[in-house]
Amino acid sequence: MSLVVMVTVPPAGAAELARGLVEHRLAGCVNMLPGVQTVYRWGGEVAEEPETLLLIKTNGERYPELERFIKEHHPYEVPEIVALPVDRASPEFLRWLNGSLSLS
Amino acid sequence: MSLVVMVTVPPAGAAELARGLVEHRLAGCVNMLPGVQTVYRWGGEVAEEPETLLLIKTNGERYPELERFIKEHHPYEVPEIVALPVDRASPEFLRWLNGSLSLS
Amino acid sequence: MSLVVMVTVPPAGAAELARGLVEHRLAGCVNMLPGVQTVYRWGGEVAEEPETLLLIKTNGERYPELERFIKEHHPYEVPEIVALPVDRASPEFLRWLNGSLSLS
Repeated sequence: MSLVVMVTVPPAGAAELARGLVEHRLAGCVNMLPGVQTVYRWGGEVAEEPETLLLIKTNGERYPELERFIKEHHPYEVPEIVALPVDRASPEFLRWLNGSLSLS
Repeated sequence: MSLVVMVTVPPAGAAELARGLVEHRLAGCVNMLPGVQTVYRWGGEVAEEPETLLLIKTNGERYPELERFIKEHHPYEVPEIVALPVDRASPEFLRWLNGSLSLS
Repeated sequence: MSLVVMVTVPPAGAAELARGLVEHRLAGCVNMLPGVQTVYRWGGEVAEEPETLLLIKTNGERYPELERFIKEHHPYEVPEIVALPVDRASPEFLRWLNGSLSLS
């Protein structure tokens, strides 16, 4: 199954994380969406932070290693790592994606 | 099941709605994506509006009340409230999310 | 089934493609998210491009024609066309969406 993984990061660390995921064949492509403001609950308080949202295209096979890589390279104690299932996609795109993720 | 709910709002009302959802434990966190332009069909015409996109992290248990809250606090007659299913996520994030949504 | 289709395009072509999809009743609405930077693998290299992300609301019935329309009107050899399934949504929004997509 193909997946779109949502991860939010402090803006300063977005490009390095995105590039690392593609270089290590953990993602075929990563969209970096800038200027996001996130409202969240932490320690009983409601807080707000500027973030960049990464939309990471990957597949089920590469997901476990992707999650490990993000946790090792992310500054937060509990980073958001949320995977949405792909229902259908252009066959040509899927061929390109799976080729980009393949280690062989 | 965890959900990512997409809601678009006029930019002026985004922060208040996002904060209200987190304060009422209807969302663990809300990403506010600014500067969106939306093209849509209304009354037989194709129109375009500046909007902010909210990406709301919640779960199936809290969804009915979340939908009611949005309808009560949204200026549109028919607001976009669309929930995407989460296929998998970091266990630590899910624990945090469900804790943030819990009323007990 | 309702779908949210993700397509990335060069910024200059976003509005025309989005409007064409709504005019041809292939989408009820399209959110255009500007200022995206995409990191991707192409021909063995890791590259980066400025793009606009389109979030296209449609349904399974209209998807095949939507995919054809995008391929015919997109400048890339292999455009990203990725459909996420909608798990649940406001009934009023779904009625409006299916009405906007209907050819009758």
